[in-house]
Amino acid sequence: MMQVPLTLPSFLFRAETLFPKKEIISRTKHGMFRYTYREYAKRTRQLSSILRKLGVKRGDHVGTLAWNDHRHLEAYFAIPCMGAVLHTINLRLSREHIRYIINHAGDKILIIDEDLIPIIESMQSELPTVDAYIILSDLDTIPATTLHPVYSYEALLKEGDPDFLYPDDLDENAPLGMCYTSATTGNPKGVIYSHRGIYLHSMCLGLVDSCGISETDSILPVVPMFHVNAWGMPFASVWFGARQVLPGPAPTPTILVELIAREHVTVAAGVPTVWLGVAQVLEQTNADISSLRAILCGGSAAPRALIETFEQKFGIPFIHAYGMTETTPVALVSRLKSYHQTLTDSQKLDIRSKQGLLVPGIEMKILGKSGAVKWDGQEMGELCFRGNWIADAYYQDDRSQDAFVDGWLHTGDIGTIDEEGYVKIMDRTKDLVKSGGEWISTVELENTLMAHPAVFEAAVIGIPHPKWQERPIACVVLKEGFKNKVEKLELLNVLQGKFAKWWIPDDVLFLEEIPKTSVGKFLKRALRDQLRQYYDNSAE
Amino acid sequence: MMQVPLTLPSFLFRAETLFPKKEIISRTKHGMFRYTYREYAKRTRQLSSILRKLGVKRGDHVGTLAWNDHRHLEAYFAIPCMGAVLHTINLRLSREHIRYIINHAGDKILIIDEDLIPIIESMQSELPTVDAYIILSDLDTIPATTLHPVYSYEALLKEGDPDFLYPDDLDENAPLGMCYTSATTGNPKGVIYSHRGIYLHSMCLGLVDSCGISETDSILPVVPMFHVNAWGMPFASVWFGARQVLPGPAPTPTILVELIAREHVTVAAGVPTVWLGVAQVLEQTNADISSLRAILCGGSAAPRALIETFEQKFGIPFIHAYGMTETTPVALVSRLKSYHQTLTDSQKLDIRSKQGLLVPGIEMKILGKSGAVKWDGQEMGELCFRGNWIADAYYQDDRSQDAFVDGWLHTGDIGTIDEEGYVKIMDRTKDLVKSGGEWISTVELENTLMAHPAVFEAAVIGIPHPKWQERPIACVVLKEGFKNKVEKLELLNVLQGKFAKWWIPDDVLFLEEIPKTSVGKFLKRALRDQLRQYYDNSAE
Repeated sequence: MMQVPLTLPSFLFRAETLFPKKEIISRTKHGMFRYTYREYAKRTRQLSSILRKLGVKRGDHVGTLAWNDHRHLEAYFAIPCMGAVLHTINLRLSREHIRYIINHAGDKILIIDEDLIPIIESMQSELPTVDAYIILSDLDTIPATTLHPVYSYEALLKEGDPDFLYPDDLDENAPLGMCYTSATTGNPKGVIYSHRGIYLHSMCLGLVDSCGISETDSILPVVPMFHVNAWGMPFASVWFGARQVLPGPAPTPTILVELIAREHVTVAAGVPTVWLGVAQVLEQTNADISSLRAILCGGSAAPRALIETFEQKFGIPFIHAYGMTETTPVALVSRLKSYHQTLTDSQKLDIRSKQGLLVPGIEMKILGKSGAVKWDGQEMGELCFRGNWIADAYYQDDRSQDAFVDGWLHTGDIGTIDEEGYVKIMDRTKDLVKSGGEWISTVELENTLMAHPAVFEAAVIGIPHPKWQERPIACVVLKEGFKNKVEKLELLNVLQGKFAKWWIPDDVLFLEEIPKTSVGKFLKRALRDQLRQYYDNSAE
Repeated sequence: MMQVPLTLPSFLFRAETLFPKKEIISRTKHGMFRYTYREYAKRTRQLSSILRKLGVKRGDHVGTLAWNDHRHLEAYFAIPCMGAVLHTINLRLSREHIRYIINHAGDKILIIDEDLIPIIESMQSELPTVDAYIILSDLDTIPATTLHPVYSYEALLKEGDPDFLYPDDLDENAPLGMCYTSATTGNPKGVIYSHRGIYLHSMCLGLVDSCGISETDSILPVVPMFHVNAWGMPFASVWFGARQVLPGPAPTPTILVELIAREHVTVAAGVPTVWLGVAQVLEQTNADISSLRAILCGGSAAPRALIETFEQKFGIPFIHAYGMTETTPVALVSRLKSYHQTLTDSQKLDIRSKQGLLVPGIEMKILGKSGAVKWDGQEMGELCFRGNWIADAYYQDDRSQDAFVDGWLHTGDIGTIDEEGYVKIMDRTKDLVKSGGEWISTVELENTLMAHPAVFEAAVIGIPHPKWQERPIACVVLKEGFKNKVEKLELLNVLQGKFAKWWIPDDVLFLEEIPKTSVGKFLKRALRDQLRQYYDNSAE
């Protein structure tokens, strides 16, 4: 058989030749912008030719700091198709971390949305590798800025070559892009995506048994293009000639509902908080979102009630998925098997609320305390992945050795797998409580506590214990009206009967707030530090 | 990113772990046989262990001469997963050609269906590379045979190891299987399929925009497993955990209709003659085949009327596709684009009756007389393909240099491509008439002639001409009742107005029959030889 490299230019070529009339719709500062794949491909080639003129060579890193719009989509293909590396920068990171990753990646050029200029201006003197700044704007003129040398994207493109030719000798294992993932401690860690990895991941997204992205779809990626390539949607959409609806800067739930209804979106992808917001808007309006054939939801666990709301109240299939920056990201997708069709709605929901089945194309093992866990939905272990769209290291980072062991990615996520192969995420490795040689899932306990009407937030943490190694303690924030009105025992009673006795926390501490990370996750490390000596001082 | 070889054992592993309860249904001599992927995988591993004991090593060729049933499906995975090469032998070839390809492939073991033993017995003394014969039978005992050494498949399997482990270091570019394609002249030519090629082709079969094979399907491959791996259906079906319905030895249209209705088949794949037969049965019965979500049809061009019958009369989506042994085979699939939904039924049929759009994952060019043809649906050129499931040579065959040029497969098929990218096959290169520097499609002329009520068969051929290089002559066989009752002029009038003047054949010759190849195609070469001196004797 022939051996033809699995590289990105073939995706663009397919779109521009077979689907030149298909539309890309982009919400910009100045309103809705529409054009076709024919025009998209021309502008993408123009951008590549301009980057070439600005000195970008094969393997060079080009950073983007931008929202989900058509210009960012042009950069998505212009940079990797010429053999350079697309570095999408998470604009929600702290300035310190943004500065770190630009320098760590060694970005040669930065492509920046107009409204994000101030972030970069504040650190320009500390960005020695950056040779030029390109400003994305709807206008040819750009705002006054101290950035230098600085160019207008639209002005540059006018001089670009719409027939720029892409190299046909790219190595399929060469880097295509990169994305940094925030670490619990220290600086973000960089993940490199290869052409081969993105190619196969895109193919997986087109499988009926994964996300089924196709020419007939109108795709709305709510998940940011600066976050794991918007879960790979832009790559797959271009390849299959899907219509794309890009929601632009900081879309609100109301804007999303309007876009879905007006543009007849068939697939929308985002994290649970997005869909919580959208559900609220839908309760208050009578917007018609029946064009949706699927909501894809990942990033963190979707509450069962959310899935139920969309499936049963709004009639929209809600597909729970799992992945991470290191897995490109799609690894698990919760789809029912054909013989599940006869189950009750509640039984179906039990399955749909798990993270799901391994998608075709990668391998998984779940490592418990003594090797692979039993497929019983009970035994917990760490999810490990292997495959062509799984990272094999962090970019130039000593922390690689902790996560990449024996050819497998060790995710740090703890889960179970049932007899049908459905995985349920139970905890992060570092948050799991190890008590008397057994593991206790803090996520399960927290979810049950948070279902109590008085509880606003609950975090369960493991505290060093002289006899049991660790014991769980629940830290609870009560809702405003309930402060000082709820007893510890009442909350612990909620857990009785639902969990093994030894799972029940030894104590409930009422706090004013739970410390959080920059992206809003519980910072359990801080709580553990605070309570480290709990048992030293206790009577036990 | 990790680089994990794209090899077949991962398909089997996915089926046995995620879909152990899913069924394989197999029509055998002794009735319907049913088992699950759990049992299938065990028996497949047993077969591999037995082949290992019989001396099969990595890279060895193992031949199968068998119908579409569960045992053949076991061989489909047992042989390649252990690193050996699955050589599926076309049982419809002449004995001479079967002998040739077994020797040319150097098959070490032959796995033979009970009823096909006589074919091999007749040539056993001429098969020096074959070390052993394994007979597929529903029974442990096998019929008396002169083959030696000979084993019963079922008896052997009882001694096999159901936990046999497959190597995890197979090279993705190593051969997985092979299939011989009949040549117009001389011996059949062998095509080697690599693990990488089959892996990517299988992934393509699962794409919504290709065939969309998924877990929810019940797949009926009517196309023989000895012919281009039943278009790759068995590989994709195992990977995605699709239910398989295997039609067994020599299925008739009536048997197929019964299987579709009783087993609720969702996808059936076969050549046009199969569906012509099925359509006849459906006219006469009231069988319910509404479970079908798609009929896949390829191998030769499906008549427009056939597509129309299935789509409009029976309400079954009929998907026209194109491929050949050298393309694994799926290369073109005729699916409407989303914006075609507003067309009339007749306009849709115009598109659906073309061979279709290039599937994601491979490249195509159509080479006319001066480079790539225009996308106008008019200019004709030779279809050329490039990609990971396209052969790069014939196995140890000097004829490779004719078909594989500059890294592209030159198919010998002549077609047009319209502005939307839909390809229509017009002729074989060697059958095309070259008249006055222009090309004339004989297929188009023949189809129009055969639509005349008096015409049974029509073959148009190019005859050397002193002035025009070649001119078309029509050879026509009239239906019984019409012999000697139809004038040449009446038939030529059918063509007037529908084609350019210079396309109209110079003459119509009435024959008793059109000479045919072993697989029933017109043997135009014989006609051309017969008529070579037509213009030498003519007045012109």
